[in-house]
Amino acid sequence: MADEVILLDFWASAFGMRAKIALREKGVDFDLREEDFSNKSPLLLESNPVHKKIPVLVHNGKPVCESLVIVQYIDETWGPESPLLPSDPHERARARFWADYVDKKISSRRVARASTGAALDAAKEEFIEGLKVLEGELGDKAYFGGEKFGYVDVSLIPYYSWFYALETLANFNIGEECPKLEGWVKRCMQRESVAKSLADQHKVYDLMLERRKKLQAQ
Amino acid sequence: MADEVILLDFWASAFGMRAKIALREKGVDFDLREEDFSNKSPLLLESNPVHKKIPVLVHNGKPVCESLVIVQYIDETWGPESPLLPSDPHERARARFWADYVDKKISSRRVARASTGAALDAAKEEFIEGLKVLEGELGDKAYFGGEKFGYVDVSLIPYYSWFYALETLANFNIGEECPKLEGWVKRCMQRESVAKSLADQHKVYDLMLERRKKLQAQ
Repeated sequence: MADEVILLDFWASAFGMRAKIALREKGVDFDLREEDFSNKSPLLLESNPVHKKIPVLVHNGKPVCESLVIVQYIDETWGPESPLLPSDPHERARARFWADYVDKKISSRRVARASTGAALDAAKEEFIEGLKVLEGELGDKAYFGGEKFGYVDVSLIPYYSWFYALETLANFNIGEECPKLEGWVKRCMQRESVAKSLADQHKVYDLMLERRKKLQAQ
Repeated sequence: MADEVILLDFWASAFGMRAKIALREKGVDFDLREEDFSNKSPLLLESNPVHKKIPVLVHNGKPVCESLVIVQYIDETWGPESPLLPSDPHERARARFWADYVDKKISSRRVARASTGAALDAAKEEFIEGLKVLEGELGDKAYFGGEKFGYVDVSLIPYYSWFYALETLANFNIGEECPKLEGWVKRCMQRESVAKSLADQHKVYDLMLERRKKLQAQ
């Protein structure tokens, strides 16, 4: 019997993109279902009763929630010949540390939702500072893990979808701040798994404007 | 050559306790080094230059940071005959989800640092709500993973050290709110790995009072 793989997603979510990239890296066919947050599907509410958030991967009826947990699940379930996490335990720990760093420090949401000039400046500064630390870790390597695209790359590259919106809103240039990351973005974008999974930067910008309008109206 | 295993720690840290429990579950001998936060050791600054926080596990000169990353590293490195994470990928994902939930929702720090009555009430309510969700997940099982003590138990049980301090400060009774968790605490505390790693509840209470005094003086 073929696997039934469903991904509950929202097109502009960096977390959802992580799951899509990982599935595509592994060559897994999946049924992509877009959620409407104002009317969440019964499957979403049932599969992620705790957080009620996307992404959720439903594999043969069993749900997996939280994007980094999903990426690790995908890595352990499919395509052992093209692993996303390294096999050496210390290298694995290192990859998990940096993916956790991305989760804690890189928040496009904080920049996108800043409601005052001061909050925007603070969020922008923290965002750039986080990217610079990541740029330091990348150094002259092709990818975070070395020569091969892997777990940390999957966790970070989705934010590229949000770069144009954030740069335009907060008036900065990520490429100028982090030239090595810019080169890394180009390498990642050459992969079909990434190019196919990332949202269009201009659509994300429009979404951000729309959401900011709603927030301001509240 | 014998392994050199150093743990940089602070006695009252729930995160440090996770690492100690995991090492003791695996029967690993380690050199426990207490950090002085007002004068951090060169080894700490060098091993965790990003966060400069304990716990850090230094194994044969290689550092591993972030408590859940450390616990997974320990699980992958020592004692495969007594695993903390289950071998089935879906069960592993489930364990990672709940450990992540503990990290996001259970914050003794938020309760302990609340500076006003309203902030304390809000932090207490969130803390209890988080524990109740965990109680629901535990249900009638002996441990979160079923019959065996494992990853989610390691991630949560250290907070027991803080229960007395939080209950006294915020005037509530965790056992009354979550009777099943109370039974689980007793089972966990019967394990040498846990009993030996958890800080004394009264010492933690004294530390909390001291810290609150300093915060109020600021």
